[in-house]
Amino acid sequence: MRLMDPHAIDSLDTLRRRIREFAEARAWERYHNPKNLVMALSVEAAELLEPFQWLTPEQSRQLSADQREAVRQEIADVLIYLTRLADVLDIDLLDAAADKLALNARKYPVEKAHGNALKSTEFSND
Amino acid sequence: MRLMDPHAIDSLDTLRRRIREFAEARAWERYHNPKNLVMALSVEAAELLEPFQWLTPEQSRQLSADQREAVRQEIADVLIYLTRLADVLDIDLLDAAADKLALNARKYPVEKAHGNALKSTEFSND
Amino acid sequence: MRLMDPHAIDSLDTLRRRIREFAEARAWERYHNPKNLVMALSVEAAELLEPFQWLTPEQSRQLSADQREAVRQEIADVLIYLTRLADVLDIDLLDAAADKLALNARKYPVEKAHGNALKSTEFSND
Amino acid sequence: MRLMDPHAIDSLDTLRRRIREFAEARAWERYHNPKNLVMALSVEAAELLEPFQWLTPEQSRQLSADQREAVRQEIADVLIYLTRLADVLDIDLLDAAADKLALNARKYPVEKAHGNALKSTEFSND
Repeated sequence: MRLMDPHAIDSLDTLRRRIREFAEARAWERYHNPKNLVMALSVEAAELLEPFQWLTPEQSRQLSADQREAVRQEIADVLIYLTRLADVLDIDLLDAAADKLALNARKYPVEKAHGNALKSTEFSND
Repeated sequence: MRLMDPHAIDSLDTLRRRIREFAEARAWERYHNPKNLVMALSVEAAELLEPFQWLTPEQSRQLSADQREAVRQEIADVLIYLTRLADVLDIDLLDAAADKLALNARKYPVEKAHGNALKSTEFSND
Repeated sequence: MRLMDPHAIDSLDTLRRRIREFAEARAWERYHNPKNLVMALSVEAAELLEPFQWLTPEQSRQLSADQREAVRQEIADVLIYLTRLADVLDIDLLDAAADKLALNARKYPVEKAHGNALKSTEFSND
Repeated sequence: MRLMDPHAIDSLDTLRRRIREFAEARAWERYHNPKNLVMALSVEAAELLEPFQWLTPEQSRQLSADQREAVRQEIADVLIYLTRLADVLDIDLLDAAADKLALNARKYPVEKAHGNALKSTEFSND
């Protein structure tokens, strides 16, 4: 439980600061240029693919406890690198996501997009 | 500015709910099994690589306004899919990240890891 | 048909030389360091994911002519960058693949691996 | 050396057949639908990113023997999955690459593209 722990990470902003402290304590700033960070992020995103690559979509909805824990750690890795990248680029994650969702709502209005994602009509647009 | 807008996205949890509403309004739940979502996430993570692939690390720290805006949108796409994936798997993003950071701190104590990331000693461990 | 066309690409080695000429004619060698090339390769591999992200595995076996042509181009992009990367690193692609297949045969002998890939027992081992 | 070994893999087509035999011997065909194969390919492409993520471009040109061997194995993994995917989709790899290079030559004529890749003017076009 995070509620009453002064060290708890209760917001994206706190996470951002903790990751920054973590990196600075280890003098890793020089490795954390955006080019390297997007590479690290892609590595972690692909590690998230791996547990699912031979599963059917239905099996992917019914992970074992072990599988779910492995996936949970990879999801965490992706969030950590994404947060670090946004911090280094001075981009606010929630603002960016809010703007993108608004853009997607205009590109994929409910009447047009209802039920149809097969033609890569996705809610996170390219 | 998000502060006084009832529709503003002021937390990861609000983002999670907005994305869920967005998907449900379009009857996209059947496409959003974890296998498909991790694929979509990897597609977006790789779109984040593209603006940087021919830049030097130094150039990656000095993006033009246009480059930064393109990157901002791709970062948003990654966060949106990551949040949706975590929601579908019932994984709390901040809890997962906090646990992973704690694990990384044990694996890469400051005395050992200071200044050294070349041997893939990274703060987001595999 | 490629057989009697002096310009045809009839082997991986010819492809390697054509890509090298293509890059040198455009003075692109300085961009083609291995770090950049693996990034470009990952970008293309993810572009190969995109047409399939909302399809079921069964649908993925029955692509339309348009889908198949798009996939064919992305497959070509991956091979081109892989060949260029191997050339820059002076790695023989067929030798490397032959060695890896031999290693996989030892790691996944038929008796053990028959029918079972669910536990990420894959023929192209990590 | 491959030259006089009847079991040697001396062409992409031989590689294709060997990989097919490998998969069939293990009854893995049912896992090898295109959707799964493009995921496995992306996983391997990202494993190729990892050795380079904290290196500078210059360091990426001077790998140690160990680093080079690790990279060689990941390159092999990518080629193996790409070859398998093309086989399952009945796509000829060299034909596809030849067509794509020809297309790229038209899109990036030497006069226009010389020295310039910074605006993602790449020889393997999207």
